[in-house]
Amino acid sequence: MGMKVVIIGAVAAGPKTACRLKRLMPDAQITMIDQDDIISYGGCGIPYYVSGDVPDDSELYSTNFHMIRDVNFFKNAKGVELKTKRKAIGIDRKKKVVIAKNLETGKEEEFPYDKLVLATGSRPNVIPVKGVDLDGVFTISNLHKAIEIRKRLTQGKVEKAVVIGGGAIGIEMADAIGDLWGVETKIVEFMPQLLPKVVNNTISLMIQKKLEDHNIKVYTSETVKSIEGDENGHVKKVITDKHEFDADLVLLATGVRPRGELAKDAGLAVSSYGAIVVNQRMQTSDPDIYAAGDCVEVINLITGKKAYAPMGSLANRQGRVVANNIAGIPSVFDGVVGTFITQVFDISVGATGLSVELAQQEGFDAESVMIVTLNKVHFMPEHAPLYVNIIVDKRTRRFLGFQGVGPMGDSFLARLNAAATALKFKVTIDELSTVELAYAPPFATPVDCLNVAANVAENLLNGMLKLITPQEFSEWIENPSLHEDWIALDVREEQSAKPFMEAFGPRWICLRYDKIRSEYHKLPKDKTLILVCSSGTRSYEVQLFLDTLGYKSLVLDGGMAVFNMIPCPWYPKKS
Amino acid sequence: MGMKVVIIGAVAAGPKTACRLKRLMPDAQITMIDQDDIISYGGCGIPYYVSGDVPDDSELYSTNFHMIRDVNFFKNAKGVELKTKRKAIGIDRKKKVVIAKNLETGKEEEFPYDKLVLATGSRPNVIPVKGVDLDGVFTISNLHKAIEIRKRLTQGKVEKAVVIGGGAIGIEMADAIGDLWGVETKIVEFMPQLLPKVVNNTISLMIQKKLEDHNIKVYTSETVKSIEGDENGHVKKVITDKHEFDADLVLLATGVRPRGELAKDAGLAVSSYGAIVVNQRMQTSDPDIYAAGDCVEVINLITGKKAYAPMGSLANRQGRVVANNIAGIPSVFDGVVGTFITQVFDISVGATGLSVELAQQEGFDAESVMIVTLNKVHFMPEHAPLYVNIIVDKRTRRFLGFQGVGPMGDSFLARLNAAATALKFKVTIDELSTVELAYAPPFATPVDCLNVAANVAENLLNGMLKLITPQEFSEWIENPSLHEDWIALDVREEQSAKPFMEAFGPRWICLRYDKIRSEYHKLPKDKTLILVCSSGTRSYEVQLFLDTLGYKSLVLDGGMAVFNMIPCPWYPKKS
Repeated sequence: MGMKVVIIGAVAAGPKTACRLKRLMPDAQITMIDQDDIISYGGCGIPYYVSGDVPDDSELYSTNFHMIRDVNFFKNAKGVELKTKRKAIGIDRKKKVVIAKNLETGKEEEFPYDKLVLATGSRPNVIPVKGVDLDGVFTISNLHKAIEIRKRLTQGKVEKAVVIGGGAIGIEMADAIGDLWGVETKIVEFMPQLLPKVVNNTISLMIQKKLEDHNIKVYTSETVKSIEGDENGHVKKVITDKHEFDADLVLLATGVRPRGELAKDAGLAVSSYGAIVVNQRMQTSDPDIYAAGDCVEVINLITGKKAYAPMGSLANRQGRVVANNIAGIPSVFDGVVGTFITQVFDISVGATGLSVELAQQEGFDAESVMIVTLNKVHFMPEHAPLYVNIIVDKRTRRFLGFQGVGPMGDSFLARLNAAATALKFKVTIDELSTVELAYAPPFATPVDCLNVAANVAENLLNGMLKLITPQEFSEWIENPSLHEDWIALDVREEQSAKPFMEAFGPRWICLRYDKIRSEYHKLPKDKTLILVCSSGTRSYEVQLFLDTLGYKSLVLDGGMAVFNMIPCPWYPKKS
Repeated sequence: MGMKVVIIGAVAAGPKTACRLKRLMPDAQITMIDQDDIISYGGCGIPYYVSGDVPDDSELYSTNFHMIRDVNFFKNAKGVELKTKRKAIGIDRKKKVVIAKNLETGKEEEFPYDKLVLATGSRPNVIPVKGVDLDGVFTISNLHKAIEIRKRLTQGKVEKAVVIGGGAIGIEMADAIGDLWGVETKIVEFMPQLLPKVVNNTISLMIQKKLEDHNIKVYTSETVKSIEGDENGHVKKVITDKHEFDADLVLLATGVRPRGELAKDAGLAVSSYGAIVVNQRMQTSDPDIYAAGDCVEVINLITGKKAYAPMGSLANRQGRVVANNIAGIPSVFDGVVGTFITQVFDISVGATGLSVELAQQEGFDAESVMIVTLNKVHFMPEHAPLYVNIIVDKRTRRFLGFQGVGPMGDSFLARLNAAATALKFKVTIDELSTVELAYAPPFATPVDCLNVAANVAENLLNGMLKLITPQEFSEWIENPSLHEDWIALDVREEQSAKPFMEAFGPRWICLRYDKIRSEYHKLPKDKTLILVCSSGTRSYEVQLFLDTLGYKSLVLDGGMAVFNMIPCPWYPKKS
């Protein structure tokens, strides 16, 4: 008889472990139990199912050759015993037995194991306010709820929705219901920006503008106080500290936390917030028990510290490592760099590594710079800008993070993936500068976006590039008294500068880039020149020249291009 | 007075060095000389100019903010003195002077330097046959020739073209003239495949099929013997060892070689084939003379050996390193991994690192495997397959190369760039397996293509996956006597297998993937089962199961999907 392996949880890490292990050890007896009856589904596909992009829920639990991943599939195709509607309620580590309640019969059942795998996943955070249990208030925690949400949408029962939480899931769900179903949708986020700590303020504003351009209103720095219902127990209103919003659908997208209770009750090491502690082989504090997926604590490879990273993609990678180790192939999951990407209407937004805010908080001497480059050579049709932010450590020159916004499609992804790869291998910006990304005019610029980002970071760390952020610039434009010695020097074509000179008078002057070397003497020497061009590139070049002549200057980070992408009340109207 | 720097060559590495250096050392006196008058142009854009995608040649030498990069631009915007129509004819290293001939006056001029930079580029190889100097025979070496080629196309003077050389440039040029101008176009390559040594045979056949689907005929293993002209000296025919092709346009795309004569004559170290020898700081054997771009020899980071890699993207990266070092910022260009990408009609094709053929030739114990995955989750609209090949070293498990084909757009690029990054940092396939590429359903699969490739390579090296190539399979289909004990076991749906069972009789049997575990006893034990599915994934799973029962089996690498992409005479016609 082969080894007995029991796996608790059958969504992502569980099935991956089970199938890989059965391939490695064909004589193992693998039993996977789950409290649900829909299993092995692509939870990350929920927003696309709700939007209607994915026509039928069964596609989320089918293989790419169109077989439904159900009990029979696991038995016949995979050789894995799957027991659904079984809720694991205890682990007897001495007897090596899992005790589960059969949710159909109500009886307890025992599953003996030689090796046990915990893939118990996560549960959604529920904000501690009145009304979260009203009809019409949903977490986005499983496919049953998604099916119910979509049912209400298709039946025309939803006119006004409030999404609580401005993280990736909240944004994806708002996009799904606001755009395709025409539901009047709002996002309420208690932090001052969308995707807090994940992307910088400029990038968060790009997402916000994109949402607002599609009639999804965003309310940041706003706290939900309660959710009110009508006499029938249906949700009616969301009350925040600033507004009352009518709503017949409320989605709670305020993150998830690990399901670690079973592990904790069995005496396994568990973090303060309930995540199961594992080593690099994904072993818990009991060497015969492994854990993987949303229920475990991982190491952040940038900080070296413990972290929580509930992602379907990581669950799959971890499941494979668990199976390898059980089968005697030593394998490690060393940790995460924290890569994410999402679609917001016609743009892609993503990040890998640390945001500058998080990096500083973690004790790095972190700096960052926005770069605007093209995704292919400017002479090729359909080129589009990439707005990226690179985060580096000043002392060690270590590359810490990369994030940004690109057009829909995969051109931003192509840089993000390379950055994520580099982060895993702990490189400096000097090494990143010569990473050999692919070049041909339909795909990239000769010096690729990511190389440019490394080069600009080098200039920043060498003290050659002195910046102000778009936020500082906006604040000054709106309140000149903040910096009375500042004056904007626009080095673009006169015709690009003209509307700004008309709008802001003597605070905005223009001297074209290629005239600076011969006409710099026209510039005021008693002012700090705020250098303005399209992307920052020409401004930087002008700054270096002016430095040698004793002029004070600061480059507007990312140039005017950034203001096309973020809400900008002072931007002159196009005539 | 600042440092005097002379730069010979003003296309890619030269201008990059000049502009960066002027930014770093604003008081340096930088003089760039070039024998041509069109300078600083995007040579890689030539095929897109010839095709008409780029409407005007000036776009190839304009900035992305639409300024022409000419003598005035370099003077006014960059502070760099540019002297065109000067051909450097000698370097007096004692006097530190470059001697150049003014091609307009015919006089010799001297350019004194403190530091000298050689960016003398490359020249096209010209095959040693009669007729290469006929009117209508062109190398693709500079923009003047491209302008002339396009002129002939627009004037309707070209009806039949022969491209000699099936490398990336040859393919791009054939695409440009064959598709958009409707010229009857042929490619003649003397090696047995397109992109020899760069991609494997399967991928080269995918390119060939794509070209032939667009009426560009490909003749491999065919040697050009002579080029014949008419009485007026116009090209008329290309004579190979197998054919006579009518042609009124012949393009020689048979690679380039470094222009190292000037360096050699000055006594600098130069390789046997004429490339200038530089250290990692891009210094020649004279520490006051640097070199960069197509004229230098580089190190291949995978083999550790000397290599030649003439690419505009590398020239730019090297130029920056030269400027840094001259300005006292120690910088290195450590070498190349050899990344390339190109568009062939509606597919993208690329490679990074070593092909399996080259890896074996370099002494690696190299193996490779084809993987067919999707560029996004199968339930998302518009998903498309990625056909990739991963190359690994068996002994060290080192990742050696990655290549493949994807749809047009950047989804293949997104994996290629990550692979190129990993190659630079010398990683194992085990590390590659957990590289954290970005995942969301519109962008990737939970286990990304590149991670899957690493996983499959691991299975291969562990001896779990036993393969035959599509070529071996095709040979057996066409000639059963090659392997009389082979029988194809199709594990797909019966309806997918049916046309093949009809076409090949008892040599092709079907037992659906999910029936194998219960009905394996129906399979012949005295045969070697050639396992066939769409991509190889199900076949691999079946192989592991059958192994335990003593069946002999081999997995068809890449599955049937590959045969949709390559010329396949035996493929049953769709009814």
